[in-house]
Amino acid sequence: MKIKGFAMKKIGEVGWIEKDAPVCGPLDALVKPLAVSPCSSDIHTVYSGALGDRHDMILGHEAVGEVVMVGELVKDFKPGDKVIVPAITPDWGDVASQAGYSMHSTGMLAGWKFSNFKDGVFAELFHVNEADANMALMPEGMTLKQAVMLCDMVPTGFHGVELADIQFGDTVCVIGIGPVGLMSVAGAKLRGASRIFAVGSRPNCIEIAKVYGATDIVNYRNGDIVEQVMKLTNGKGVDRVIIAGGDNDTFIQAITMLKAGGKIGNVNYLGEGDFIKIPRVEWGCGMAHKTISGGLMPGGRLRMEKLASMITYGRVDTSLLVTHEFHGKEHIAEALELMHNKPKDLIKPIVYFD
Amino acid sequence: MKIKGFAMKKIGEVGWIEKDAPVCGPLDALVKPLAVSPCSSDIHTVYSGALGDRHDMILGHEAVGEVVMVGELVKDFKPGDKVIVPAITPDWGDVASQAGYSMHSTGMLAGWKFSNFKDGVFAELFHVNEADANMALMPEGMTLKQAVMLCDMVPTGFHGVELADIQFGDTVCVIGIGPVGLMSVAGAKLRGASRIFAVGSRPNCIEIAKVYGATDIVNYRNGDIVEQVMKLTNGKGVDRVIIAGGDNDTFIQAITMLKAGGKIGNVNYLGEGDFIKIPRVEWGCGMAHKTISGGLMPGGRLRMEKLASMITYGRVDTSLLVTHEFHGKEHIAEALELMHNKPKDLIKPIVYFD
Amino acid sequence: MKIKGFAMKKIGEVGWIEKDAPVCGPLDALVKPLAVSPCSSDIHTVYSGALGDRHDMILGHEAVGEVVMVGELVKDFKPGDKVIVPAITPDWGDVASQAGYSMHSTGMLAGWKFSNFKDGVFAELFHVNEADANMALMPEGMTLKQAVMLCDMVPTGFHGVELADIQFGDTVCVIGIGPVGLMSVAGAKLRGASRIFAVGSRPNCIEIAKVYGATDIVNYRNGDIVEQVMKLTNGKGVDRVIIAGGDNDTFIQAITMLKAGGKIGNVNYLGEGDFIKIPRVEWGCGMAHKTISGGLMPGGRLRMEKLASMITYGRVDTSLLVTHEFHGKEHIAEALELMHNKPKDLIKPIVYFD
Amino acid sequence: MKIKGFAMKKIGEVGWIEKDAPVCGPLDALVKPLAVSPCSSDIHTVYSGALGDRHDMILGHEAVGEVVMVGELVKDFKPGDKVIVPAITPDWGDVASQAGYSMHSTGMLAGWKFSNFKDGVFAELFHVNEADANMALMPEGMTLKQAVMLCDMVPTGFHGVELADIQFGDTVCVIGIGPVGLMSVAGAKLRGASRIFAVGSRPNCIEIAKVYGATDIVNYRNGDIVEQVMKLTNGKGVDRVIIAGGDNDTFIQAITMLKAGGKIGNVNYLGEGDFIKIPRVEWGCGMAHKTISGGLMPGGRLRMEKLASMITYGRVDTSLLVTHEFHGKEHIAEALELMHNKPKDLIKPIVYFD
Repeated sequence: MKIKGFAMKKIGEVGWIEKDAPVCGPLDALVKPLAVSPCSSDIHTVYSGALGDRHDMILGHEAVGEVVMVGELVKDFKPGDKVIVPAITPDWGDVASQAGYSMHSTGMLAGWKFSNFKDGVFAELFHVNEADANMALMPEGMTLKQAVMLCDMVPTGFHGVELADIQFGDTVCVIGIGPVGLMSVAGAKLRGASRIFAVGSRPNCIEIAKVYGATDIVNYRNGDIVEQVMKLTNGKGVDRVIIAGGDNDTFIQAITMLKAGGKIGNVNYLGEGDFIKIPRVEWGCGMAHKTISGGLMPGGRLRMEKLASMITYGRVDTSLLVTHEFHGKEHIAEALELMHNKPKDLIKPIVYFD
Repeated sequence: MKIKGFAMKKIGEVGWIEKDAPVCGPLDALVKPLAVSPCSSDIHTVYSGALGDRHDMILGHEAVGEVVMVGELVKDFKPGDKVIVPAITPDWGDVASQAGYSMHSTGMLAGWKFSNFKDGVFAELFHVNEADANMALMPEGMTLKQAVMLCDMVPTGFHGVELADIQFGDTVCVIGIGPVGLMSVAGAKLRGASRIFAVGSRPNCIEIAKVYGATDIVNYRNGDIVEQVMKLTNGKGVDRVIIAGGDNDTFIQAITMLKAGGKIGNVNYLGEGDFIKIPRVEWGCGMAHKTISGGLMPGGRLRMEKLASMITYGRVDTSLLVTHEFHGKEHIAEALELMHNKPKDLIKPIVYFD
Repeated sequence: MKIKGFAMKKIGEVGWIEKDAPVCGPLDALVKPLAVSPCSSDIHTVYSGALGDRHDMILGHEAVGEVVMVGELVKDFKPGDKVIVPAITPDWGDVASQAGYSMHSTGMLAGWKFSNFKDGVFAELFHVNEADANMALMPEGMTLKQAVMLCDMVPTGFHGVELADIQFGDTVCVIGIGPVGLMSVAGAKLRGASRIFAVGSRPNCIEIAKVYGATDIVNYRNGDIVEQVMKLTNGKGVDRVIIAGGDNDTFIQAITMLKAGGKIGNVNYLGEGDFIKIPRVEWGCGMAHKTISGGLMPGGRLRMEKLASMITYGRVDTSLLVTHEFHGKEHIAEALELMHNKPKDLIKPIVYFD
Repeated sequence: MKIKGFAMKKIGEVGWIEKDAPVCGPLDALVKPLAVSPCSSDIHTVYSGALGDRHDMILGHEAVGEVVMVGELVKDFKPGDKVIVPAITPDWGDVASQAGYSMHSTGMLAGWKFSNFKDGVFAELFHVNEADANMALMPEGMTLKQAVMLCDMVPTGFHGVELADIQFGDTVCVIGIGPVGLMSVAGAKLRGASRIFAVGSRPNCIEIAKVYGATDIVNYRNGDIVEQVMKLTNGKGVDRVIIAGGDNDTFIQAITMLKAGGKIGNVNYLGEGDFIKIPRVEWGCGMAHKTISGGLMPGGRLRMEKLASMITYGRVDTSLLVTHEFHGKEHIAEALELMHNKPKDLIKPIVYFD
């Protein structure tokens, strides 16, 4: 059987291809997308060659879909189930998973499989490994628009919050307010932050950041962001920084605005350059207890179920992230191109498959 | 100099007394109350003799006030400053504080000094030890009504949330929705809980619990609360339980409704009985990783500053807790009596001093 | 194919039986024991009916063995490999495992399968689920005697240390110095405890406890153990308690000798009685931050590999635990009977299969 | 009253000076040294001007001594008491201390006062702030040689272990095996590490590293240390790295040899250069969960008491660190010069004052 998928043909070139349908192993499922969303990572993969040269690899890692087939050892899902599939689908028995780092099962970052080590979700059919452990039922009453943001945007944005270890009453700076950063803002509020600085410049994102809980907008067009934050905090700086945008040099700003004893949570994929730079003096000559963490989102079923329940019970409204909606899978190219060009009013596009 | 204070004269008897004004040591401050709030603990102290027999001890441990005098080593406060004074005022140099448990400095629970080891705040003037470390400036724009809830209700209710270690998407049960439990509900939402069961029966509290984030009300008048929770969760139980009411036997319910790997945070002062009972089988014969924590609220300046900032930035509205307001310190007896009789519409009374 | 196994025929009766060989699923392995060790749990299972009435269930959950067969999805093991098999063999994809509690995968305590939900290891052949994730290669140079202690004694004893969260310089009390408690003593030393009280009375165990790091022996035959500990600590009590023996009432002693802010780690299986009792006043009326944790050992491959490496690098010598060695599987009855009668010189017996 | 002290006269110049004796405030103590030890930091201060230009500042921050005078609010110490004084003496009421970072009380690193913000301990008399909270009685039976290593070497070396968060069976690399690194080796073993790589080249240090628990010596003279470690671990790398020597570029090596999910604890004071460099690809493009922590040692009384108890109960023998002993304070110049020249056989010198 053949399937069609929207693929990276080679670096810099995308398009629909046809290839053999994926094989469903005894623990696996095959899923037909209902809605997908392209991600900046797809752009990095295709246009910057971030993962190296790949040929005819189907793109996409954010999808909700309908189960078409399950392996004989799958117990909890059956064809027809509507499921949320996380971008990260670990090998749960691996020693890295046993150590609490399932996203690094079988190798650093190797829990990320879609459009990386295997074909992605922009296809008529895609493959999910360890289906019982890596899919969650889409709850009753949840829209596809809400659900597809759970695959990557929410868990990644919220993981920045977890890495930064936010406590009641913390002052937090979120650097970068694209869709992931916006979820970090929402997550920081949901972990008890009091004041939240959101660093960004696009009007659309600024408006949504305020809705999600930002109390102060710091726009780099108005001057150095560190100076702005230090001034607004009377020179004290912030308790926590979440990095959800920028580049290697963003850490210089983050360390500088951070109090001694503070923590940085990075969820920005750093695609270029040799070194992240940590400013020595501001890092207290290595002695300031300014902890630097960064990590890929945790995936898997439980994560999806827990985050989905936050939508169900009204704790976060992910639908605000979706600014562009397309009906029909033929619009994937168009949606992806949006992520490439990033028009002013874009946060996230989604594509309904039918 | 003499001051007047509203005191426990002996077990079962309260009234105004006159005694020598407190002495201001080099690290200390004397504070004149602006608003105070009586607490259930005052009732336990007076009518149940929870702390043993005390004579002519001024009551009260929740106050915001104005600084009247500071010791010569006090650097950050001066007469005229309006301050929030936490119920718990630790000795910060003590080894227990150095170990991270300042509320137990100089002895178990001994960080609680007001109306316990020394005169309380229902007086024309009260004493604050280590003033720089144990008072916080009342922020501009905060009302006395909001501020006085920060002394005990917010830090205690939120500490239940901290002890229960709530994570994104957790299902939480808060047992007891008096003012502390209501703050546990608000705090659970603010730490990322999804579904929140609130166990209580008084209509006024139920209504406020919903405002603060409760998704399900469990009324023990409708049957066993464990059965209700298990039914509503399809037999799965909850991830976390916060105990903010009930008695020793409440732990039986809490353990039973808790999932393996779950956590209990207790902030209910257990005033009677010999033993808290942990049900053996439901506790997995000691093997279920159902962790039981309970502790007095952390006090001190930083805690007050952080929680105050949560009001300033609109994360929590404490004024909903205050159902009865009195003007004039002569109403303290009346306010305390409310806490004794607990009329249906009561959550917390406050008394403005002037 | 039929295999022979030493089984619980019914409550109170044991003996060799013959039954169908286990089936090897695609993720599984079949293993032939090289050495096994009976455990007190086997005694509770058979003679107290701790797990309820079971018929013809093969006993035993501590074994090292040789792989005989592996399923087609097993990647890292092959017939002939010598492996350590932990007592706890989780389902790693289960949501409880994803939450960090693999020992409760598919249900509270349900990571414990051998001689509980399926046949145990006292058999010519036994079944290991998810073999890649639940077995570890026995390192070169390790003796069977050392290795078989890794299945349950080391991970359980060390887990008590983990649950009690021991820090540099802590004063620790280990209650119970059977083989698990001895490993808690060794583990407490290995986590940086300074003074270690070991509570026990059997001369053999006392001697070994000292070798493993106990600095003070507290014998209940010399009076109340709490009084002894309080006297030896000048009334201060201890920072941490590990419960590795005793019964429900042991928690009364543990709470009483514990400092405010202290932690209890329980690894004793509590087989009888309705309630564990927590003394209210000594628990600070619920306010003392005396945290109570208890849990089944973490199993799985990584745990075995890590603990095995501690033997390889000379951090702990498990062979001291083995006081009785039998050659030939026909001696299993005799070894088990030792655990039943507990002669004075017994710590742990092992049985070499050939 | 005048006292003599061995001081930094200006950058590059040291010598004895005379100045006014320190004033004893109500919470303070004045202490006469019994034994002191110079530290590499003293060398950086004097010869690299690491703290900027200072004039006639008495050096030294490692001392045990005898109390000569206490302020009127000091409760637990009296003249004649022999005390251990930690290098870090925090202001315990400060908000940074309340947040758990007492070493940063009143400012980043500002818990370090001796020979930084005030005169050090190389004097006939030195000043201790908040004496009850910042001194510990020297236990009976402890030698001055053992005790003086508790001021800085043990707490700093062990803090590297704490920051790296070592767990049972972890493979650890300690980079730098001067006296601090040697204590990190000892501390890693004492937290349950299995294999410990010690990176260094001086024969004396290598020998002691093995005594303290190093299982493999990695000498940079034999080639790239990362290559050596990767080869010895079959390409897997290590779970934890403690940085106790080297320079800014050492983090490149540390990150590269670290597994995903690993942790780095830095206790090396980084005295030069603009940036610490984190290699992007090896740090998983920001996604590898390789956490980087670094911090000044926690000081204060409790820390000293806990670490002292580890010597008392035989958990660590600090006397191995002391390679050179001088009798008479006139030898301070000579001892300091040793730290400057670092002869091959040097680990730490100490100077007995009388």
